[in-house]
Amino acid sequence: MTIKEQIHQVKRQSARLAASSNEERNELLSSIAKGLLDDWDAIVRANALDLSAPDIPPAVRSRLVFSEEKRDAVIKGISEVSHLPDLIGKVLERRELDSCFILSRISVPLGVIGMVFEARPDALVQIVSLAVKSGNGIVLKGGSEAMHTNQALAASIMKSAEKSTVGNGWILLLTSREEVGEMLTANGDIDLIIPRGSNTFVSFVMRHTTIPVLGHSSGICHLYVSAHANLSMASLVAVDPKPTYPAACNAIETLLVDRSVASSFIPLVATALREKGVVIHGDKETCALVPDSIPYKDGDWGKEYLALELNIHVVSSLEEAMTHINTYGSHHTDAIITEDKAEGETFQRGVDSADVFVNCSTRFSDGYRFGLGAEVGISTSKVHARGPVGLSGLMSSKWLLSGHGELVATYTGKNARPFTHKELPL
Amino acid sequence: MTIKEQIHQVKRQSARLAASSNEERNELLSSIAKGLLDDWDAIVRANALDLSAPDIPPAVRSRLVFSEEKRDAVIKGISEVSHLPDLIGKVLERRELDSCFILSRISVPLGVIGMVFEARPDALVQIVSLAVKSGNGIVLKGGSEAMHTNQALAASIMKSAEKSTVGNGWILLLTSREEVGEMLTANGDIDLIIPRGSNTFVSFVMRHTTIPVLGHSSGICHLYVSAHANLSMASLVAVDPKPTYPAACNAIETLLVDRSVASSFIPLVATALREKGVVIHGDKETCALVPDSIPYKDGDWGKEYLALELNIHVVSSLEEAMTHINTYGSHHTDAIITEDKAEGETFQRGVDSADVFVNCSTRFSDGYRFGLGAEVGISTSKVHARGPVGLSGLMSSKWLLSGHGELVATYTGKNARPFTHKELPL
Repeated sequence: MTIKEQIHQVKRQSARLAASSNEERNELLSSIAKGLLDDWDAIVRANALDLSAPDIPPAVRSRLVFSEEKRDAVIKGISEVSHLPDLIGKVLERRELDSCFILSRISVPLGVIGMVFEARPDALVQIVSLAVKSGNGIVLKGGSEAMHTNQALAASIMKSAEKSTVGNGWILLLTSREEVGEMLTANGDIDLIIPRGSNTFVSFVMRHTTIPVLGHSSGICHLYVSAHANLSMASLVAVDPKPTYPAACNAIETLLVDRSVASSFIPLVATALREKGVVIHGDKETCALVPDSIPYKDGDWGKEYLALELNIHVVSSLEEAMTHINTYGSHHTDAIITEDKAEGETFQRGVDSADVFVNCSTRFSDGYRFGLGAEVGISTSKVHARGPVGLSGLMSSKWLLSGHGELVATYTGKNARPFTHKELPL
Repeated sequence: MTIKEQIHQVKRQSARLAASSNEERNELLSSIAKGLLDDWDAIVRANALDLSAPDIPPAVRSRLVFSEEKRDAVIKGISEVSHLPDLIGKVLERRELDSCFILSRISVPLGVIGMVFEARPDALVQIVSLAVKSGNGIVLKGGSEAMHTNQALAASIMKSAEKSTVGNGWILLLTSREEVGEMLTANGDIDLIIPRGSNTFVSFVMRHTTIPVLGHSSGICHLYVSAHANLSMASLVAVDPKPTYPAACNAIETLLVDRSVASSFIPLVATALREKGVVIHGDKETCALVPDSIPYKDGDWGKEYLALELNIHVVSSLEEAMTHINTYGSHHTDAIITEDKAEGETFQRGVDSADVFVNCSTRFSDGYRFGLGAEVGISTSKVHARGPVGLSGLMSSKWLLSGHGELVATYTGKNARPFTHKELPL
């Protein structure tokens, strides 16, 4: 079978998973968890093979290692996902069109998710568990550095699923980068593509498919310290994102400072940032206040440093800060520090981003922290799901209408019977 | 300015509309309605110019005429749209992350809608009124047959809007087909494209843009008459769709008949269809029962006739009917006639379409009939809005989080403070 035919098989066979009960899906999840323990030796051997490759950078190695600790964390994660409320069949709207003629909109699985993810074996298990719980088939392509581990994990999952009531036709692991191209052109068989990885890769995916894509390429986030900010709070919040995880998509790349507080705040925050090893790229006014900062270069404002570096830029007003954010940002997460409630609300209304915060760190933009249970990614798209995406972003809906032989002819023309159009409780 | 620059201007200037109050938008709507009356003479002259073109087919002419009756209908429509509930800022979710640290998700406009529509001047007014109410900028391209009328309507609307608090920077009318290409590549400035028109055109749009598209190309809808159908009801429902509006996207193209009722039902429905002038394309069994039907040809099952023609096909089970629909249909609207409630539910679960009906006509698939107030189109996409799309399909959402200096560092690591993650009433 070609890759396209295999993907088509997944589409066809996922119908059984979509039609399964919550109990069936939870049982499948628990047998997947049990299977990972049963197959642990094979998984460890495969992981050792991946780790034996020469010249793995330390950051990749730490993501690649699939330790007992990580295994136990993903098994705990599977159990948490199985306890999330079942969304299949959930009634979203109900309306009476006429007496005994009821329209409803219910939540249904999207169909098949195409997921491309980084070299993190634990991500594979997390994604599969969300796919199972939401009733979606899944076509996976993981980072090539983790190929053997991913194959061992997928083999274990498929073995567990084979014995389940829903079978294992709903999952497919692709192994080569070329096969991603087959995924991007599988219109009709793949309903949503979720790419994770480098900005270049995600942008490539977004430009090369007409299948809906959920995710974000860059995370160019801002913190605006307003004229009405509590400056010591501002300094703590400004320093929170970068050091904890410099490459995080929700870490700030540019700190915007209102001119009226620049001379008091910038030296203060510069000291705090310097202590954490953060390099400052400053505009003219910042460089005058912090002589060891790197002078601003064209393009810095649209850059995601993915490192212990950030821009500091002085602005003259809330308006200028919002315009800067809407122009140079990536519509991901932006925050303001202000004691003026009305100013905070104006900022939240005017900034066109998925997450707009007042008086807290941008790094709260995260499915777990938001209380979504788990996360497949963070979307900067404005259609479907926006911001951190959990189970609900993997659902579509359908409209059901049940009658007794109603004809449109009855409700049309001169003597048309009127609709009642009465909203009903869910 | 180039077209791209003009579209970018619309994006920039729509921010004012997005930030406007419901009162401001309703005032704008009422001055647009008043303006259409004030400018009526100019509109009539422009419409006469369009109607003076040689060789306009009668069907196009009847859509093209902008009579006083149509004007009054659109003015009534504007008033109805202004009375719809305001969705901007509507709270969709609320969750406590920690004491006094509240996350909410609110409804916001998408930004700018790119709309390509058929030669129906009344559609322009309807679309503009939905754009205004939802706070979205709009880039319009109407059918070229209606060019002068559209220009007169747009000029009137822009004149009315110019005097309003939100100005008229949020609307742009494109006039040439080539400019549609500029729309399809305006990523970042256009947030959603809604194409209406021929299947070929809509498919072209869907294949040639990476901007999200809302709509449907073909409407290949089915009615399945089950073994447990009330056959006289089935016959009435089968005849309802085609004659009322043969080219409607929600009219059935194939009537599937369970073998157990075929010999009694098919002659019955054939007579009823023949009376309405509907031509039958039949499979072997149908042709044996209805000798004057046209024998099935390869490809008929995937065809949208857009005329007084349909297929009749005998199937041996509910399963076969559902497989046929999921294989050959366009995932738009499909219905079953059955007196068996469980069978109806199985059909509604198993058919992968936007609208799945029991015991009623497929032509109920319509924004007005669904009680959505008005409709921009019917979506067969599974992400964002599915089925008839009203105001809510023109909305996105954003997450707001307001705190008192909360840091992610506090909620991370060994002594992490736990989140409360408590759902709050809306």
